[in-house]
Amino acid sequence: MTVGQHWLTVEPLEARAFAPFGDVIEAGRGAAPRTINEGFAQRFDALARLDVGRDGGQAMLSLFRAKPRPMPFQLRLVERHLRGSQAFIPYPPQRFLVVIAPPGPAPTREQLRCFMASEGQGVNYAAGTWHHPLIALDDGGDFLVIDRHADDDDCEEHSLLEAGVWVKA
Amino acid sequence: MTVGQHWLTVEPLEARAFAPFGDVIEAGRGAAPRTINEGFAQRFDALARLDVGRDGGQAMLSLFRAKPRPMPFQLRLVERHLRGSQAFIPYPPQRFLVVIAPPGPAPTREQLRCFMASEGQGVNYAAGTWHHPLIALDDGGDFLVIDRHADDDDCEEHSLLEAGVWVKA
Repeated sequence: MTVGQHWLTVEPLEARAFAPFGDVIEAGRGAAPRTINEGFAQRFDALARLDVGRDGGQAMLSLFRAKPRPMPFQLRLVERHLRGSQAFIPYPPQRFLVVIAPPGPAPTREQLRCFMASEGQGVNYAAGTWHHPLIALDDGGDFLVIDRHADDDDCEEHSLLEAGVWVKA
Repeated sequence: MTVGQHWLTVEPLEARAFAPFGDVIEAGRGAAPRTINEGFAQRFDALARLDVGRDGGQAMLSLFRAKPRPMPFQLRLVERHLRGSQAFIPYPPQRFLVVIAPPGPAPTREQLRCFMASEGQGVNYAAGTWHHPLIALDDGGDFLVIDRHADDDDCEEHSLLEAGVWVKA
């Protein structure tokens, strides 16, 4: 039974706040850089903890071409992938919204968090993290996605229709 | 012994021409799209054949922060990674040069090819493909890199100093 509307607070995306859910992907993060290529490049390793090799999984690079979400909107569901991480990087850079809840039992509406990724940021959801499908803003756009590819179907959904969760960017 | 200068011809980067060396990464390529996210996204799978799981390898997402190469310049070496692929995606989009030779014995200078990646393109080198280190142009910039991470050292170099190979963008 829905008890009124629950509006999510939009927080700025920041690595420490996002740590329970995965990684913020942004230039200059990751391990301390190494100089490579005869001095013509600095290499920052491990921008995100890609976790895509479990149970015969392979890394896959895909592209999501997104339509912008009309705002405000009511969230219909969250989903999770128990066997692998999933990274989203807008290409070219653009802001987007991330709605997320910690791994574990299906989240209550109070457990949902909403982050605004600013231009130049991406996210990597750790395996098992509940997340809303991609929420593109403005003109939509393309997103590079790095996730686990395997023969199994590793997607579980949880409906939010009864919970009355709304967001506005 | 160097016999004169050998100047590479700069070809436009195009999937068919690049096929012997790996994949051209660009929006809209890959498998036919599937509609996902309640109609709010089209998913194009497998933009590149990531091959990073051999011999205990794991997928790694890194960032190379590159300085532009002065032009013209003499190529000093090519290298190859026998156990895994390596993908480069400029972020944000920008043009860059790719110098490459087919897998197999160390290449002669006549086997080297040079492609200009235009804005919005990336490349994925198939395992074993000889390639020059990253050649950024203009202001340099950042490149997302997806390659194989493992404890072994999977990089073999071949000097081009004697071959007198030059390129100009």
